Amino acid sequence: MSGRPSGWVQVAGLGPGDEALVTPQVQAALAEATDIIGYIPYVRRVPDRAGLTKHESDNRVELERATHALSLAARGARVVVVSSGDPGVFAMASALFEALEAGPVGWRDLDIRILPGITAMLAASARIGAPMGHDFCAINLSDNLKPWTVIETRLRLAARAGFSMGFYNPRSASRPHQFGQALAILREELPASVPVSFARNVSRPDERIVTVPLGQAQAEMADMRTVVIVGTAETRQVGRFYYTPRSLAQER
Amino acid sequence: MSGRPSGWVQVAGLGPGDEALVTPQVQAALAEATDIIGYIPYVRRVPDRAGLTKHESDNRVELERATHALSLAARGARVVVVSSGDPGVFAMASALFEALEAGPVGWRDLDIRILPGITAMLAASARIGAPMGHDFCAINLSDNLKPWTVIETRLRLAARAGFSMGFYNPRSASRPHQFGQALAILREELPASVPVSFARNVSRPDERIVTVPLGQAQAEMADMRTVVIVGTAETRQVGRFYYTPRSLAQER
Repeated sequence: MSGRPSGWVQVAGLGPGDEALVTPQVQAALAEATDIIGYIPYVRRVPDRAGLTKHESDNRVELERATHALSLAARGARVVVVSSGDPGVFAMASALFEALEAGPVGWRDLDIRILPGITAMLAASARIGAPMGHDFCAINLSDNLKPWTVIETRLRLAARAGFSMGFYNPRSASRPHQFGQALAILREELPASVPVSFARNVSRPDERIVTVPLGQAQAEMADMRTVVIVGTAETRQVGRFYYTPRSLAQER
Repeated sequence: MSGRPSGWVQVAGLGPGDEALVTPQVQAALAEATDIIGYIPYVRRVPDRAGLTKHESDNRVELERATHALSLAARGARVVVVSSGDPGVFAMASALFEALEAGPVGWRDLDIRILPGITAMLAASARIGAPMGHDFCAINLSDNLKPWTVIETRLRLAARAGFSMGFYNPRSASRPHQFGQALAILREELPASVPVSFARNVSRPDERIVTVPLGQAQAEMADMRTVVIVGTAETRQVGRFYYTPRSLAQER
């Protein structure tokens, strides 16, 4: 015996909501788990069964949740931390490694795996057409964890780079005005015709996707359940779809 | 009868290689298809069965392939265009809409769907830890479809924005020197300590992932089967993992 604990932690991406978007790899992890840890609505997506303990926690306690997962695994539990979308995209994977770094050195020998999932930005893109069909970026618009000035700079640089953009957490009740500022910056940097899509509850029964030109985009079109997709000056409409061509002929 | 053809086209993301990363949604589409169209190695991943016709095509004929798919669907076929990774990320979705725009207007009434998949950048990130745990971008380093100067500008802007970066098609036999130029630009813009991961054949049995500091990154570490992940000045190592923290305290 090596003394290495038999427990493990897998941080699993449940995708945007539709069970048909959960990978078999994630399903297998859920089937082998002794403990499920995560934000309440994600934990509730996992069916109850004998031998499975579910630990629901509220939003904004990512680090405590990650520490809990690692401490259970260190005692031999098989723990799945459930995350929406892809755990590596503005979700639980980074929090797990922050907790790992802050915790006992012995935790670093644990069997830890991140299981990718379909992230909301790419699920929304698929429904819209192919707005991220050229180079793109993803920005978390919440300033809970970084200064708003950094977000403003990133928006300008991304627009000048010609990236399509996916915005997570565009707007919440506690910061209703910042997304309007973000749109104002984009209007300074991009043509008013650039399509902006507001994709709410992608892949769920109440999915709603609205696309408008940047010049008509309003902050009120987004909330915390919305991912916002901004095209480029090259993004085109064909039928009901929007796509960014693979080619870029001219110098920028 | 509305006259709308009963055929359809679904552009399906097969993920990076491991069958456990193929979504049930994609599996269902493959099971219902009459025709599979795509690049040879992706078509060969789909098992033969009665009633299924497989159309293999070589690389770099994306537009012809997309036109073929739409024309078959217009005649009533149920066509799956198979794509690696996510079809919306440097893959077949944009090509399909380009073909749709160039083709007969009647094609725009076809039932067309894009089925998302696990893209190589995010599969690689999951294996590395959480290098895309903060804002990030994805850049196709091939200059087959855009001027190299645009790529250079995007690399500089992305570095100044503080994005983690994922590079697709970093290097090929026909353009062996450009990736070295890309690394030189990054070395001008970022600390030499920033981790750079070379992830080849992610999720396949012969997966190989090597992470080195930017100062030691060599162009020869990449080929066309490699996705390259570049962290930020904040990316940290803990045990065998690399992750970019969710928080950014300082102004940039």
